Amino acid sequence: MKATLVTAEMAEQPDVIARIAVRADAVRDAVREVLPERLTGVTWVARGSSDNAAVLGRYLAEISSGRPSGLAAPSLITRYDAALDYSGQLVVGLSQSGETPEIVDVCRRLKAAGARVIAITNGLQSSLTAVADAVLLTDAGDERAVPATKTVTAQMLLVAVLASAIGSLRIDARDLTLLREVVAAQLAHPQEADSLAAEWREHPGLLVVARGFSYAAALESALKVREVASVHAEGLSVPDLLHGPIAASNPDLPVLLLGGSARTDEDIEEASERLRDFDVPQHRFDAVAGLPEALQPIAATVFGQQLARAWALARDLDPDAPLGLSKVTLTH
Amino acid sequence: MKATLVTAEMAEQPDVIARIAVRADAVRDAVREVLPERLTGVTWVARGSSDNAAVLGRYLAEISSGRPSGLAAPSLITRYDAALDYSGQLVVGLSQSGETPEIVDVCRRLKAAGARVIAITNGLQSSLTAVADAVLLTDAGDERAVPATKTVTAQMLLVAVLASAIGSLRIDARDLTLLREVVAAQLAHPQEADSLAAEWREHPGLLVVARGFSYAAALESALKVREVASVHAEGLSVPDLLHGPIAASNPDLPVLLLGGSARTDEDIEEASERLRDFDVPQHRFDAVAGLPEALQPIAATVFGQQLARAWALARDLDPDAPLGLSKVTLTH
Repeated sequence: MKATLVTAEMAEQPDVIARIAVRADAVRDAVREVLPERLTGVTWVARGSSDNAAVLGRYLAEISSGRPSGLAAPSLITRYDAALDYSGQLVVGLSQSGETPEIVDVCRRLKAAGARVIAITNGLQSSLTAVADAVLLTDAGDERAVPATKTVTAQMLLVAVLASAIGSLRIDARDLTLLREVVAAQLAHPQEADSLAAEWREHPGLLVVARGFSYAAALESALKVREVASVHAEGLSVPDLLHGPIAASNPDLPVLLLGGSARTDEDIEEASERLRDFDVPQHRFDAVAGLPEALQPIAATVFGQQLARAWALARDLDPDAPLGLSKVTLTH
Repeated sequence: MKATLVTAEMAEQPDVIARIAVRADAVRDAVREVLPERLTGVTWVARGSSDNAAVLGRYLAEISSGRPSGLAAPSLITRYDAALDYSGQLVVGLSQSGETPEIVDVCRRLKAAGARVIAITNGLQSSLTAVADAVLLTDAGDERAVPATKTVTAQMLLVAVLASAIGSLRIDARDLTLLREVVAAQLAHPQEADSLAAEWREHPGLLVVARGFSYAAALESALKVREVASVHAEGLSVPDLLHGPIAASNPDLPVLLLGGSARTDEDIEEASERLRDFDVPQHRFDAVAGLPEALQPIAATVFGQQLARAWALARDLDPDAPLGLSKVTLTH
């Protein structure tokens, strides 16, 4: 079996986590230095995989700061030329390359509208860092495979550290050490994902379902399976599943359930029971004992990467370069 | 061909629009009366079809008021018990019945956290109206078919009128008269949707693609086709399409493009060209001349209803009662 680029880049994740862990206090200082005096909210600007890290940020920033958080609607700026007042807002722009024109434009305009802007990027000297008041580098090394892996988990980790700088959320050094160990252990033992991919190989679709913080991992895992294995995958929250798509459930559409914590276990269990009524093949990726809930989505995302890679290989596809995708997306 | 409940309820939409048009100034007064003195932002709370009306609200409230707007993450409250400060926030809860426990809970808690709460509902004396500082009634009459139609377009219209009360967005009486006429003409001429459903009947999936305000209509049209015709439909913005799913495009997955205005025409044209490269069957629903862009999503949503209904009938399904769905969803 071919050793793929994406496999190599996935394997770097424990090191990437370790490098961020060393800088965690410095990251928090950098965030606090640019924080508006009276924070009115936190807005996230991203596309693609970065958008899924932004979803995690949206949850963690709100629970930590107590202030509303949400995702930007770029077209309001780039198409409608909205006159905005973003005073008091912290805006976080996420872009792997730092060169996605739409993200750079929106961050520049929101800064002009009064926001403080933080960039989370792998691009040290990029158009995005030139716009930002503070830069949190993912420092994940070059990412050459088209599917983003190590840069996404690095973004998710920086998002969690950022959130811990603006309020009550606590993430300490021990948590970060455990996260590195957990991810290293996952990568050393891909069997759970491999056997699942073998079992589900012939299915044309997949639902990835979670609740709360892990919803971000559901979206990212679905995106990864979709782009790497060309499987029609979709990420959903438990209520969204039960509010509609459950009616179309069938034995051809397997469901990956992502456990997050005791707080959301009942939701996952409820979804699981309902799916049993429809004879839906299901698999549950369990929450990792001891890991803070804010970091659980990173472990779940790594599992999603493993599943996507294994599913692609099972279908004789090249996980490094899915058809039609290029690395920097030039939507603007 | 059976005269279905949903067909009858769709046909009531011009009257529902007319009843709201008469109250438009009163609606604006009610909104202004509860508006926080210093508005910091607008948060929307909803699930299912109401969530798609909320997406329209999220765009229109931000462009009108200039302040950030976004969708609530209910689990932060119902699962994580977040300590929130929503002072200065306008919160809008949307629920057809007014009895979805999760929506009521979240609105109650956000009010306790300092927000002013507006309910948009068809349920005159409901749990949601009991919580709200102001109530905007859809006044659409009982909705007995499971798929929500007239209540959704009523929500979308109230959302637009609400947005026009909090800032620069203008919607005048003439616009509302034109909207009623446009929707009546659409309903009298279902041929465009009927022939499309006949053409696409055998396809197992559909993408509905839009940009800007009409993104809400793309989400709602996809949801309707999904739940009414049991077709795997998904709503996407143009950038999200080009950022990934375009790679999986193929002649079996038709695309409905929703035009919105001159501002987003180039995006729709770009998507259309890219899809041609993949031999994707596509159809464009054009923006309606003279209708303000904020109201275009309502016309597009009516077209989505027509397509969903026609597609269900073409597949010998009952559009009134899709399998497994019930009217009030009890997620909490």
